[in-house]
Amino acid sequence: MAVADGWECHALSVDYGQRHRAELDAARRVASALGAVEHRVVRIDLGIFGGSALTDPAIEVPRTPSEGIPVTYVPARNTIFLALALAHAEVCEASAIFTGVNAVDYSGYPDCRPEFVAAFERLANVATKRAVEGAPIEILAPIIELGKGEIVRRGHALGVDFALTVSCYNADAAGRACGECDACRFRRAGFAEAGIPDPTRYRGNDLK
Amino acid sequence: MAVADGWECHALSVDYGQRHRAELDAARRVASALGAVEHRVVRIDLGIFGGSALTDPAIEVPRTPSEGIPVTYVPARNTIFLALALAHAEVCEASAIFTGVNAVDYSGYPDCRPEFVAAFERLANVATKRAVEGAPIEILAPIIELGKGEIVRRGHALGVDFALTVSCYNADAAGRACGECDACRFRRAGFAEAGIPDPTRYRGNDLK
Repeated sequence: MAVADGWECHALSVDYGQRHRAELDAARRVASALGAVEHRVVRIDLGIFGGSALTDPAIEVPRTPSEGIPVTYVPARNTIFLALALAHAEVCEASAIFTGVNAVDYSGYPDCRPEFVAAFERLANVATKRAVEGAPIEILAPIIELGKGEIVRRGHALGVDFALTVSCYNADAAGRACGECDACRFRRAGFAEAGIPDPTRYRGNDLK
Repeated sequence: MAVADGWECHALSVDYGQRHRAELDAARRVASALGAVEHRVVRIDLGIFGGSALTDPAIEVPRTPSEGIPVTYVPARNTIFLALALAHAEVCEASAIFTGVNAVDYSGYPDCRPEFVAAFERLANVATKRAVEGAPIEILAPIIELGKGEIVRRGHALGVDFALTVSCYNADAAGRACGECDACRFRRAGFAEAGIPDPTRYRGNDLK
């Protein structure tokens, strides 16, 4: 959506010790396919704080829907991601940060909600030299209020190759999905709702 | 000040590729001397973004006072530090984060001002599972409005051993200060103003 709107995109991914590291390879493929100016990966080991199934190998990713905020929640993750993006944005003189957070059909993560994004934008505009010197920054979350079906429809209309992307929390090194975690279920339901064939590579497919 | 107020302190330092890595050793000594429950060091290489004399070896730390915000400013640094502290605070169920930012006799960094701290506190309280589930968090900056002389006086009254601490941007591996950078000048003036002997180890002292 940012590319379609004419933005020059500097892509940033975070290698934070997530078990689904395959998403970093996927991000590289997507950034390249969409013509990003660059794709950087910043490393930080959030596993030292613990407290999440995504960074602590001792906590398993649930295979059934959870009540409340699930154990896949990573403490303060999107605050950390946006803080890193803010540093990158300031150095490359960007006037907006795009984030793909989504508050519909979601897992109940507090840092995926519009009030979180709005609070971060207010913070960003008092936090950096560039902003206080007169170049404000916007935090844009263009899919935050879209259902997964609508996201699939919009992506399809823009020519996104969803086969390049990985959502699964348990993705294997080759990027194949488990088909069972929250992320897989929401994604699969999105394709079904949109009536668009799901190109996701599920591990189980190999067994058929 | 936190210890004197009865807080159980979990100390956190960030190894962000700063040239004055001696401050990490100093932080360890201070945390131990003050009886912190733990002292963690989280690593993140902010040098990949560049843009600062503190993380880019190619940019020299000025030896004379700068006009405006100096090149020692690190893009979004305190936003990143507080975001990491927020993750740690959530996991150890802390109800406050203390930061030593200071907006008086300072270098003009935007992320050392009261409006920055207030904006981060608002963000923190919509960002985490713990906060949205009813356990709000405070961001406390007890020295933010104190002059350096007053900070020295307060520390002295509390029995702080300033010989354990390092402020210098050019500190050598042994923690000895250059005596010339902004951080050294503000610190030295603080001791002079307080009328308290300066225990800082300056590299030049060895030459006398």
